[in-house]
Amino acid sequence: MQKLFNVLNKLMESGEYARLKDELNSEQPVNVAEYFEELTAEKQLFVFRLLTKDMAADVFSYMDSDTQEHIVHSITDREVRNIVDEMFLDDTVDFLEEAPANLVKKVLRNTDAETRKLINRFLNYPENSAGSLMTIEFVKLRSSMTVATAMKQIKQTGTDKETIYTCYVIDDQRKLIGVVPLRTLICASDDETIEELMQEDIVSVLTTDDQEEVANIFKKYNWMALPVTDTEGRLVGIITVDDIVDVIEQETTEDMEKMAALIPSDEEYLKTPVMILAKNRIVWLSLLMVSGTLSSMVIVRYSSLIETVVILSGFIPIITDTGGNAGSQASTMIIRGMALGEIQLKDVLKVVWKEIRVGVICGLALGLMNMLKMTLVNSDAGFWVNLSVSVSMALVVVLAKTIGCFLPILAKAFKLDPAMMAGPLITTVVDVIALIIYFTLAAIFVL
Amino acid sequence: MQKLFNVLNKLMESGEYARLKDELNSEQPVNVAEYFEELTAEKQLFVFRLLTKDMAADVFSYMDSDTQEHIVHSITDREVRNIVDEMFLDDTVDFLEEAPANLVKKVLRNTDAETRKLINRFLNYPENSAGSLMTIEFVKLRSSMTVATAMKQIKQTGTDKETIYTCYVIDDQRKLIGVVPLRTLICASDDETIEELMQEDIVSVLTTDDQEEVANIFKKYNWMALPVTDTEGRLVGIITVDDIVDVIEQETTEDMEKMAALIPSDEEYLKTPVMILAKNRIVWLSLLMVSGTLSSMVIVRYSSLIETVVILSGFIPIITDTGGNAGSQASTMIIRGMALGEIQLKDVLKVVWKEIRVGVICGLALGLMNMLKMTLVNSDAGFWVNLSVSVSMALVVVLAKTIGCFLPILAKAFKLDPAMMAGPLITTVVDVIALIIYFTLAAIFVL
Repeated sequence: MQKLFNVLNKLMESGEYARLKDELNSEQPVNVAEYFEELTAEKQLFVFRLLTKDMAADVFSYMDSDTQEHIVHSITDREVRNIVDEMFLDDTVDFLEEAPANLVKKVLRNTDAETRKLINRFLNYPENSAGSLMTIEFVKLRSSMTVATAMKQIKQTGTDKETIYTCYVIDDQRKLIGVVPLRTLICASDDETIEELMQEDIVSVLTTDDQEEVANIFKKYNWMALPVTDTEGRLVGIITVDDIVDVIEQETTEDMEKMAALIPSDEEYLKTPVMILAKNRIVWLSLLMVSGTLSSMVIVRYSSLIETVVILSGFIPIITDTGGNAGSQASTMIIRGMALGEIQLKDVLKVVWKEIRVGVICGLALGLMNMLKMTLVNSDAGFWVNLSVSVSMALVVVLAKTIGCFLPILAKAFKLDPAMMAGPLITTVVDVIALIIYFTLAAIFVL
Repeated sequence: MQKLFNVLNKLMESGEYARLKDELNSEQPVNVAEYFEELTAEKQLFVFRLLTKDMAADVFSYMDSDTQEHIVHSITDREVRNIVDEMFLDDTVDFLEEAPANLVKKVLRNTDAETRKLINRFLNYPENSAGSLMTIEFVKLRSSMTVATAMKQIKQTGTDKETIYTCYVIDDQRKLIGVVPLRTLICASDDETIEELMQEDIVSVLTTDDQEEVANIFKKYNWMALPVTDTEGRLVGIITVDDIVDVIEQETTEDMEKMAALIPSDEEYLKTPVMILAKNRIVWLSLLMVSGTLSSMVIVRYSSLIETVVILSGFIPIITDTGGNAGSQASTMIIRGMALGEIQLKDVLKVVWKEIRVGVICGLALGLMNMLKMTLVNSDAGFWVNLSVSVSMALVVVLAKTIGCFLPILAKAFKLDPAMMAGPLITTVVDVIALIIYFTLAAIFVL
């Protein structure tokens, strides 16, 4: 990429604008969009005006929102109109969702009434819904058409569509009645009708369906596009697989952030202000800190034991940490398994029973290893202390695994997000139990 | 889905096999494959034989590997030949990669020599490489062809291709010289040549490239297919976007598992034996346990202080846990940001400076909150103990954030996987530092 940028920069410095223009317009739009991020605001505008109408719209849709806003702010109304004309509606809407009000106005006053109406409808779909993802530039066919007529229509209007590779058949009420892949049309003979060729067994989503559901359908069927209908079954748009790749990334990032006790955010890390980052973290940190008070209470209850055998306090972190780690392992596998649809609510008993067995194996192994290690390294702690630590560790691992797999499933049963029940929360819960087990055993063994 | 299964089961029980056959063959293959998982081994075979040749191959490619193996084991050589003939080569290879040797032999002896050679070549590509993902059923055109000739060829051979929507242009040495989307062909006039229409600025990958790299290219360009060449630039296959969705899921699962101190595994949770699950967990649990010995050493060093002010031990978990959580938050954001390509190695200073500021804000807030909480709840601990805990907490949060963002970047710089440097490892590192800070401050404030 840097090589391309160097070439472009050189052409700019030496004033070879005609060649610069040629280079820019023959590059991949996404690469040109990346080049903009390297340029000063003034040069951005200059370079943008070297792009052809088509290319300008393509490049614009790949730019980050800061650059987009700068460009729209600086160009003339006429130029705005050109871009909006060429852009797919869903890209325009994506830009408008982030843009400040004055730029939204500038764009809207440069679109015709019909597009403006459409844009407004799109802006009203809930965030992360199928409606907010879809595009309206798709191929509509009628069931009475012959293949020849259909192909002629596709040939004439194809360049303006987001995809022509899946075509949708609607009736007079705009209801979706069939789907025909372009491949079927190409391999059919000219006089066959769409009705004979179309698949009538259609999977579609509603405008209000959540994007995660939409992504799951794509993952299951391996399709390239999915139709979106309103509640009356009328076809209003389609979603293409390239947008789903982004949805999957976004949903996974959200899960990971929740699993690390963060409030999820859509913004890129480097572009998020420090105050926002801090805010997204403090909420859970303080909640977990306050619930950590329970651990203190357990320890304080056993302070006379600790006073007598002070070395017991030395093994608090190793027991709580091992418990936390064992629990996080289990919860991560279950949360991910549920997100991928591999684990269902009905599997709860199977999962718990599996984790108990895994826990027993891990617990025994770690307990024995710990006993061996402590006998060698912490021999001054004495046999009974070492035994307390090792047995607690074994028990804590079993319990942590059980809790770690059970809480995410419980969350799901209560329609909460299982991702919440990950490492940090599990650790806090397991800590309290681990400490109770440890000190109870120590009181029995050591005193 | 259950509704469909009920319909099919009813037809089977009442012996309406003709209708059952119709129903099965008009369903989505992926749904029929799911139905197989509900059936007994005997019924699986019976139902499989009701499927048409085409459908049988499609359904087979969606089945889980146990069912696939059972089917191939039970059917005749002739039936094996039919399925392999109809299946896309990459699906056959996927099956063979998992299958036991006797079934591999059964499949190979039922394929012609040329396919067998191809299959063997595919089986030799490294796991998770572009070569192991690609398919060889794609449209090859010559630059001298006219649009009419090309369309005729596509029409004749299109049904056997994995995709016809992107066509690849090769020269006499099978070198890739251009790419033409089908859309361009459709919208062009019949007598234009491929040479005039094809894009010569091609992005391609090598058979040996890692699938993560391939996925990143798809994410960047939003394409539907990507050509794969050998080191001499000869076109050997293509990768389609539907396979990339699986790669993205797989890579993310791997990251999450590493972040939870698990050894990653490709198998579904419910299908993984308990012993394997335990093995994948014990390695990191025991490593972290052993390195946790450092925390014990720190506490033991301060045992005379704890003997004097035993209540100090009560706040060990709350300080180490908060530190661990703060560090996990930072490391998760950085690991994910690097996986998505939003954070680069060169951003290290920007990131660390950002995390220090976030850490100071979070640290101050938590320290103050903790002081308030302890003054109200743990008033018997005394002002100086409360102050030690609160100040340590503030300092630990800042340090944890810094370590949490720095270690993943460091791992990347050393070409290790940043996902390793997540919650569990960060917690263990932060624990030691947190304890040193806490007891040093306590020794100053309390004694």
